[in-house]
Amino acid sequence: MILTVTLNTALDFTYRVPRLTPHASHRVTDVTERPGGKGLNVARVLAALGRPVTVTGFAGGSTGAALRAQLAEDIGVRDALLDVAGRTRRTVAVVDERTGDTTQLNEPGPLVSPAEWARFLTSYEELLTSADAVALCGSLPPGVPVGAYARLIRAARAARVPVLLDTSGEPLRRGIAARPDVVKPNADELAELTGSHEPLRATRDARRRGAHAVVASLGADGLLAATPDGAWQAAPPAAVRGNPTGAGDSVVAALVAGLAEASPWPRRLTHAVALSAATVLAPVAGEFDAAAYEEFLGRVAVTERAGAA
Amino acid sequence: MILTVTLNTALDFTYRVPRLTPHASHRVTDVTERPGGKGLNVARVLAALGRPVTVTGFAGGSTGAALRAQLAEDIGVRDALLDVAGRTRRTVAVVDERTGDTTQLNEPGPLVSPAEWARFLTSYEELLTSADAVALCGSLPPGVPVGAYARLIRAARAARVPVLLDTSGEPLRRGIAARPDVVKPNADELAELTGSHEPLRATRDARRRGAHAVVASLGADGLLAATPDGAWQAAPPAAVRGNPTGAGDSVVAALVAGLAEASPWPRRLTHAVALSAATVLAPVAGEFDAAAYEEFLGRVAVTERAGAA
Repeated sequence: MILTVTLNTALDFTYRVPRLTPHASHRVTDVTERPGGKGLNVARVLAALGRPVTVTGFAGGSTGAALRAQLAEDIGVRDALLDVAGRTRRTVAVVDERTGDTTQLNEPGPLVSPAEWARFLTSYEELLTSADAVALCGSLPPGVPVGAYARLIRAARAARVPVLLDTSGEPLRRGIAARPDVVKPNADELAELTGSHEPLRATRDARRRGAHAVVASLGADGLLAATPDGAWQAAPPAAVRGNPTGAGDSVVAALVAGLAEASPWPRRLTHAVALSAATVLAPVAGEFDAAAYEEFLGRVAVTERAGAA
Repeated sequence: MILTVTLNTALDFTYRVPRLTPHASHRVTDVTERPGGKGLNVARVLAALGRPVTVTGFAGGSTGAALRAQLAEDIGVRDALLDVAGRTRRTVAVVDERTGDTTQLNEPGPLVSPAEWARFLTSYEELLTSADAVALCGSLPPGVPVGAYARLIRAARAARVPVLLDTSGEPLRRGIAARPDVVKPNADELAELTGSHEPLRATRDARRRGAHAVVASLGADGLLAATPDGAWQAAPPAAVRGNPTGAGDSVVAALVAGLAEASPWPRRLTHAVALSAATVLAPVAGEFDAAAYEEFLGRVAVTERAGAA
């Protein structure tokens, strides 16, 4: 199975309002609520692809209970989340129906105690024994050491389980030094890490910092990968218009599946770009259009980039 | 005891953000969560004044459960809420820390079935048998007939329990025709009901529509009351600066307490204005400064208004 780790899970709310006006009162016309946090989103995509997947991380309080109850309805996702005393955060995405723009409000995560973190490490090492690959996703809640991902990467490497890291800021900087198999920064995260806004240079720099492979997600420009086997640019089939929410999580889902299979890099990138584009096409954030995915697989252009690795 | 009715209870969240910017992502720096809906707020004020108080209305789903768990910690408030299948709404007040302004997001309430409404009516009539006064507060959730308050007012009158109505729009229009003892519109609600922006004229007009007494809350100008015993203006002690959230609920708390005691109108209005001003002074929305309340009681100016009744 594939293991995804979400230390800072969330109960994600989407509020639709006719028009968002600061300092006014709004009647919310539609509310949706679903389990969130990057690793949970990645797991849902993997399950939809028919992959056995286990989720771990922390969940607590009334929001944690609601999240786990809803997760139980997701066919194919095994819940190995650990209870914590703190309350799982909520996020609220306020969608302005007039413009389609989203205003995001993210609660802080629960405070995780040293005992809870220690208990997680034990459980994680046990889960690694049956994992084919692991994806470490998202931000860290308060109380979890900033070097947490470095610790989890070293444990995966010791257990010979290939590991992908998708985070930002200092947790990314520390994690990358522990030599994960893949990191997947977006353009902003890559620039923050390396100080360079030139993707090819920044991707190469990120590899030098310790990652075996760096796959940068560049929005409409697709993916730029620097790997031990070479460097590639993978471009989406023409312009795909729709809802980009969850496209990055679909990239991670395809990359961790490729990591589990040790499939050739051009094949991994083709799947990642096709799945991401099929996610943008689907009307519901985080879901993908299965027919479009199949079709896009034949239309992704993967180009070798000399000197990028 | 005093009974407060909140058909559309809410779990009220307050999010503080450094600066609210539409279409941006925000880290919420502080989250508070508490039971809400006007009648619940009124009950908390009454309990803080040492009055035995019972709350009824509807609560359902995970938010209803959270609301009732928190309500159980409020000393002095007896919970006679009825379970419904639907989920109690959330409200989110986003406070911009830079300006202090609030942007309000209100979810729709749960759909109440005819059977749930019928069950409420039976329970309400039973609760009336031990009530000294009843306050009917706030909006109606979907499924509850728009004439609901008229029905509840007739039942209170049949049981000889004095009744106060605090709502707006069509539920106010229909309710007032059932001859409640007191209605407490604010300036906007009064103008919407009567079409007049002139408070004295509008208050008189509202009485003619069926209310025995009309107490209009006019913000910094205090209260204007048209009653069977005469008309009065009650002005707050100088200008009180602070957080006006909950000031209207404190006015209702004082008025329904005065209704239960059948105390003279000038005394009721003095308590209502003093309590409201003490609520504005308190830093936490919906709480009041007890020492200021005592002090303000001696400083409210109540002036008879000839011809207003």
